[in-house]
Amino acid sequence: MSYYTDLAMEARELDPDIKGVTEEKDEKDGVEISRIDVLNDDAAKKLGKSKGRYVTLEAKDLALRPLSLFSAAAAVFADELASILSAMAKSQSVLIVGLGNENVTPDSLGPRTVRGVYATNHFDSAIPGAFDNKLRSVSKIAPGVLGTTGIETFDVLKGIKEAVQPDLIIAVDSLASRRASRISTTIQLSNAGIEPGSGVGNLRKGLNEDGLGIPVIAIGVPLVVHASTITRDALLYIASQAGINDSEASIEALAKKASDEKLEDLIVTPKDIDTIVRDMSGILSEGINRALFGSDYDEVRALSI
Amino acid sequence: MSYYTDLAMEARELDPDIKGVTEEKDEKDGVEISRIDVLNDDAAKKLGKSKGRYVTLEAKDLALRPLSLFSAAAAVFADELASILSAMAKSQSVLIVGLGNENVTPDSLGPRTVRGVYATNHFDSAIPGAFDNKLRSVSKIAPGVLGTTGIETFDVLKGIKEAVQPDLIIAVDSLASRRASRISTTIQLSNAGIEPGSGVGNLRKGLNEDGLGIPVIAIGVPLVVHASTITRDALLYIASQAGINDSEASIEALAKKASDEKLEDLIVTPKDIDTIVRDMSGILSEGINRALFGSDYDEVRALSI
Amino acid sequence: MSYYTDLAMEARELDPDIKGVTEEKDEKDGVEISRIDVLNDDAAKKLGKSKGRYVTLEAKDLALRPLSLFSAAAAVFADELASILSAMAKSQSVLIVGLGNENVTPDSLGPRTVRGVYATNHFDSAIPGAFDNKLRSVSKIAPGVLGTTGIETFDVLKGIKEAVQPDLIIAVDSLASRRASRISTTIQLSNAGIEPGSGVGNLRKGLNEDGLGIPVIAIGVPLVVHASTITRDALLYIASQAGINDSEASIEALAKKASDEKLEDLIVTPKDIDTIVRDMSGILSEGINRALFGSDYDEVRALSI
Amino acid sequence: MSYYTDLAMEARELDPDIKGVTEEKDEKDGVEISRIDVLNDDAAKKLGKSKGRYVTLEAKDLALRPLSLFSAAAAVFADELASILSAMAKSQSVLIVGLGNENVTPDSLGPRTVRGVYATNHFDSAIPGAFDNKLRSVSKIAPGVLGTTGIETFDVLKGIKEAVQPDLIIAVDSLASRRASRISTTIQLSNAGIEPGSGVGNLRKGLNEDGLGIPVIAIGVPLVVHASTITRDALLYIASQAGINDSEASIEALAKKASDEKLEDLIVTPKDIDTIVRDMSGILSEGINRALFGSDYDEVRALSI
Repeated sequence: MSYYTDLAMEARELDPDIKGVTEEKDEKDGVEISRIDVLNDDAAKKLGKSKGRYVTLEAKDLALRPLSLFSAAAAVFADELASILSAMAKSQSVLIVGLGNENVTPDSLGPRTVRGVYATNHFDSAIPGAFDNKLRSVSKIAPGVLGTTGIETFDVLKGIKEAVQPDLIIAVDSLASRRASRISTTIQLSNAGIEPGSGVGNLRKGLNEDGLGIPVIAIGVPLVVHASTITRDALLYIASQAGINDSEASIEALAKKASDEKLEDLIVTPKDIDTIVRDMSGILSEGINRALFGSDYDEVRALSI
Repeated sequence: MSYYTDLAMEARELDPDIKGVTEEKDEKDGVEISRIDVLNDDAAKKLGKSKGRYVTLEAKDLALRPLSLFSAAAAVFADELASILSAMAKSQSVLIVGLGNENVTPDSLGPRTVRGVYATNHFDSAIPGAFDNKLRSVSKIAPGVLGTTGIETFDVLKGIKEAVQPDLIIAVDSLASRRASRISTTIQLSNAGIEPGSGVGNLRKGLNEDGLGIPVIAIGVPLVVHASTITRDALLYIASQAGINDSEASIEALAKKASDEKLEDLIVTPKDIDTIVRDMSGILSEGINRALFGSDYDEVRALSI
Repeated sequence: MSYYTDLAMEARELDPDIKGVTEEKDEKDGVEISRIDVLNDDAAKKLGKSKGRYVTLEAKDLALRPLSLFSAAAAVFADELASILSAMAKSQSVLIVGLGNENVTPDSLGPRTVRGVYATNHFDSAIPGAFDNKLRSVSKIAPGVLGTTGIETFDVLKGIKEAVQPDLIIAVDSLASRRASRISTTIQLSNAGIEPGSGVGNLRKGLNEDGLGIPVIAIGVPLVVHASTITRDALLYIASQAGINDSEASIEALAKKASDEKLEDLIVTPKDIDTIVRDMSGILSEGINRALFGSDYDEVRALSI
Repeated sequence: MSYYTDLAMEARELDPDIKGVTEEKDEKDGVEISRIDVLNDDAAKKLGKSKGRYVTLEAKDLALRPLSLFSAAAAVFADELASILSAMAKSQSVLIVGLGNENVTPDSLGPRTVRGVYATNHFDSAIPGAFDNKLRSVSKIAPGVLGTTGIETFDVLKGIKEAVQPDLIIAVDSLASRRASRISTTIQLSNAGIEPGSGVGNLRKGLNEDGLGIPVIAIGVPLVVHASTITRDALLYIASQAGINDSEASIEALAKKASDEKLEDLIVTPKDIDTIVRDMSGILSEGINRALFGSDYDEVRALSI
């Protein structure tokens, strides 16, 4: 795919006139909100994104790391996630999944976010009756990646799902964007699960209700741009300036010659990616905890030593 | 349990005359080898260890970190593990499990060892025919601990086992010893699986063939001594010196008064536990790789980028 | 020293009647405050602590990790530090020093705290005039430990002090306590600098105004108990119960026989020491930032990307 | 500088005909060796590299991580370093400096390499006479970066140099290359010290004999390519294909328009940069230890617990 992006919002920017795709824009506390609905299979195919809702939060000033915007972003994110969860009764149990490789910084968003989410699934037996069964049961796992575990992420999750029997999965993953400027400023939520080929690690089997039998909410933050994206953009621009109207394939051939590198394995990140991943996983875990536990938040936090 | 130890060798030292427990001693390249067999249920009950074979490797000089002894220890360990595995055909598949909490240094042996073991389960589809199906299939997982994931380790493994269908599990865990001097010098292997209550994290459900339906080989290194063990030893010694013949229970009551601390949550470790865990998990992963892959070792290593 | 502790408060508990030592007790927002003054050399010798002021903050509930108490503890700590700093004009420059070994968890408080403190010493040249020279200049260093760098910490600091020319040093270090219950609940501040032999790493040369030529404020948190302390306490207790009135030396000889271990290299920590160090270094860095930057805090934070 | 590279070899590739620059090529055990001498100030100015010797080792197969090549590369590197050191008597003392930010993966080569080098400077007092003063004294420091410590690296080193009084400094740093293919395969050594502006962190003051008063050997590995380099290369290529003969400045203006990003803060790295940094710092620390300690290597290693 020539213009690969994990963000529905970017896919729509490239082709804004696809029928069956609607977008609603909003703003709250310095965070711009886009809610895109992909309404039918035809639209899904054209956009390259599965049917469902995609909420994108953008706060350009997050790159400056003002603490107050962190809290605001976590709160707005918690609200949007709670809204997606709202159809669920409080008693429904959730399995949080941190996708990606903890030892590859830009791919470590999932495992790091999961570390900050509170697990409560074991409270019932440890503290019988403490919550009168009203507290939401949350369990979590960072299953690793195929390249290091030898096991398809899909297969690990299928197995754990059978053992834990959650009602819903929330999967967190690093995303690839088309623009480096989105790296420290953007969060995407979706009720459509995760497609094969997405993320930094290029997931091989999709994670969604079709495959896993329960709904999958996907949460991600763009943390890399593929090196080939940046080069291709530059080439297309100058090609158009120079009046060259070659096909995209020939542009890509040029890109390969020009760069003399295998660009597929290269990623473009900001120098301070470590700080960015820490910040963004903090916002995500805080927001997920608030959305999942609501008024029980303080109590769960105190018990999650 | 008053004299808790995860080492069968230490349990036997405390009560060397139990019938149905045999021990064979050996020595190779500076490593002392003890092979204990617990032959029947009665012996198992008295020793406090399940029926099966327990091999303990001790190399006191490992504490000095001579490189050559590291290689020797890895080689002796690989041989003993290979001997336990020898009944298996090469084609049998193995799931390596790293027990414990990666973020608690003395409990991180399992996850760190697993990081160094090569997974090959996905080679077949990635490199079709490359190995003519002769290479052993190895997959691996570090499932986290109940306290952080909310999921019983047993349940995670049961689920993954159903998904991956391995023929055998090898589980690596930090152990508790009765003597600090064993912390950087000892490795235990067993074909009896892992009992509930064992390890630094006090596993709640045992991991063995009864529960999981496939054989479980347990590998561990003593990395902590419970603070209560050290105190109790000191008290018992001076009590005997002073001619006090109180029951053990009253000694324990004294220990609590004397120390004025909740000793259960305290562990005794060497200051340089971080270095020790790194060294020992290096020896274990090297030995496991050699035992599992044999003459394919170099080829697997080259492919495990 | 038989009863080694880095806490002046514990030293005084062992011998509360030393002349020339005064103590003032206070309480604020759930934090107990003890302010001990060691008034003369004679008192210093008897107490085993240099002349000066020692402020100890204790909040037993910190062990339960309630977020609100974290903020409260950071605020009380910031106030006490600001009070010690109050004689200084705002323009005085500070060098923050994180003592200890980052790779040994209980010894990593200093380096981790320093990571969270904001350095501003380079703002002047990077953002000329931005602060009209009113902002406090702060620089920081984690010099490592003798055992790994081959350089005395004192010598590194002496050299950096010459290069940076700060008006004051604030040194943060892990401490040894006599009671495990103080590990996650106590902070000590002192204007007396740091004595040789103190801390987890047993500093070889003291860090104080005599040696370095500028005042040294010491901040520490007890994170270990020496294994020998726990054993000796237990032995002394039972010895007294049994009517044994041996000298301390003979008790120590007994302790060695009893434990059959070299207890000096062993430390006692809680299992969750990693979480505790993270929490406590967070409280310390937040409090230091507030005490050093006062009303400039928000601005400095925003600039410290 | 339009074509920025930290490698003298790449600078020479761009302009191979500069007078006063000589190159000698060699090969050993699968490692290609280039020895470039910059003979005079005029040549230095034209090449953009200070006067002195630059040795570049390249082993393309290192990217495949064959263990045997690791040892070979470490040995060849040790030989070249020893050759540069050969003018020094054994008794001369060395300060090893790990430049860069440990918390930014591609900038962490220096601190990680330094962790693996053995310090011996404190052996003399700890083990008096053990070495009859024949052992080389080595101390080491990872001084952090200006952006986090608030102190110029140059100033920290100047201060520590005064305190420790070494005869020579060896500084290790991550480099920027023009080609991603060099990232996991190349090592550069130089007796010319380090220029301002070099490395991932863009050092502000150079580290060399002029400034520090003692010789500085620089060792580096290219670990990033600036995103602007890749884009510029692509643009220049297509511009030449399209017959556009614009000035470089206008190409750069185009590049900025084309990419619509601030490319300066973006770096291009392979996905598996964490593994690469670990491998390369292992090779460097092993080679430095062998070059510095020669036949004392085993003894020093055993003592460096």
